[in-house]
Amino acid sequence: MTPDQLLQQINFIIEIDKIKYIQRKTKLFNSDRPENDAEHSWHLAMMTIVLAEHSDVSVDVLKVLKMVLIHDIVEIDAGDIFIYDTQQNHSNTENELIAAKRIFGLLPDKQAEELIAIWQEFEAGETPEARFAKAMDRIEPLLQNNSNNGGTWREFDVDYSKVYQKKKVIAQGSATLWKFAENLLNESVQKGILKKE
Amino acid sequence: MTPDQLLQQINFIIEIDKIKYIQRKTKLFNSDRPENDAEHSWHLAMMTIVLAEHSDVSVDVLKVLKMVLIHDIVEIDAGDIFIYDTQQNHSNTENELIAAKRIFGLLPDKQAEELIAIWQEFEAGETPEARFAKAMDRIEPLLQNNSNNGGTWREFDVDYSKVYQKKKVIAQGSATLWKFAENLLNESVQKGILKKE
Repeated sequence: MTPDQLLQQINFIIEIDKIKYIQRKTKLFNSDRPENDAEHSWHLAMMTIVLAEHSDVSVDVLKVLKMVLIHDIVEIDAGDIFIYDTQQNHSNTENELIAAKRIFGLLPDKQAEELIAIWQEFEAGETPEARFAKAMDRIEPLLQNNSNNGGTWREFDVDYSKVYQKKKVIAQGSATLWKFAENLLNESVQKGILKKE
Repeated sequence: MTPDQLLQQINFIIEIDKIKYIQRKTKLFNSDRPENDAEHSWHLAMMTIVLAEHSDVSVDVLKVLKMVLIHDIVEIDAGDIFIYDTQQNHSNTENELIAAKRIFGLLPDKQAEELIAIWQEFEAGETPEARFAKAMDRIEPLLQNNSNNGGTWREFDVDYSKVYQKKKVIAQGSATLWKFAENLLNESVQKGILKKE
């Protein structure tokens, strides 16, 4: 480790401050204040600590934490695309990969490579850690919208089938959490805050 | 794990959303917008991932991450006390312990006990993990004030000796990072953004 490498790390730490300005569509719990990417990432990390025991298969919790903490950093360059956007694909991976290379590329090579690889593993969603991390990413807004009288579901006129489609990713990480999520979706329909034909 | 225990975990996850409203005195980088506790905790977690290699002794990174992610949750009940506050002790541990017991106590017993123990270990600052976590907690505002033309040092008229006193905690976690921090403090004095008699 050279002094220059420490400066690279410090520059990265300063650069990623920008995710605190990236607003999501989803609002805080019982609130109309939009959540930002740093708050969202912190919350997914806390959910990981608390809920990891529900993963269908045992996961490397440290790796899941790295995934959820870094997963939205690419949005500094690529922006946040709303999960129910009908014009743009939520998985805008080409722009996001360029962003990942620039931003993680501020770090010393070995660290940059490690974090790009972890981000790609998360995006691919195939390993147990990535599946569980993605489940966390789906559950937080489900809880938020449920607390917010339908939240973005009502604001953007998203119906049960579209929400179900996105949320079933949870089932790939945890049968227990998927059962909980399905119940919450049904409850939301019954409460009249999620439209079902 | 019973369904009731999962509900306890969900209630905890909803409760801790409140730290997103707790404003710190320190501002974001190159900004006059105060940072909140969730953003701060996320940033310390990212710093831990990037800087852990500089710890004087090898640390359990997962434990450090848990420490920095949860360390401010007690402020939901106990409030944020400014580190340079002259009226109140920053380490208001009695109120904070009551807060820890209430908030982590929302979780199933075993998890509550684990997180209270980790929080207490952080507060005591004696293990390698706690020392490194505390170093992270001191470095972030140092970088922020340096980017903000003195930030809270100038806003609250805090001089070099008081800042040095608080920052030297960094030396207990990492000689490398302490050398960096000392240089940055001297640079701040030279730039005229930190007062030295």
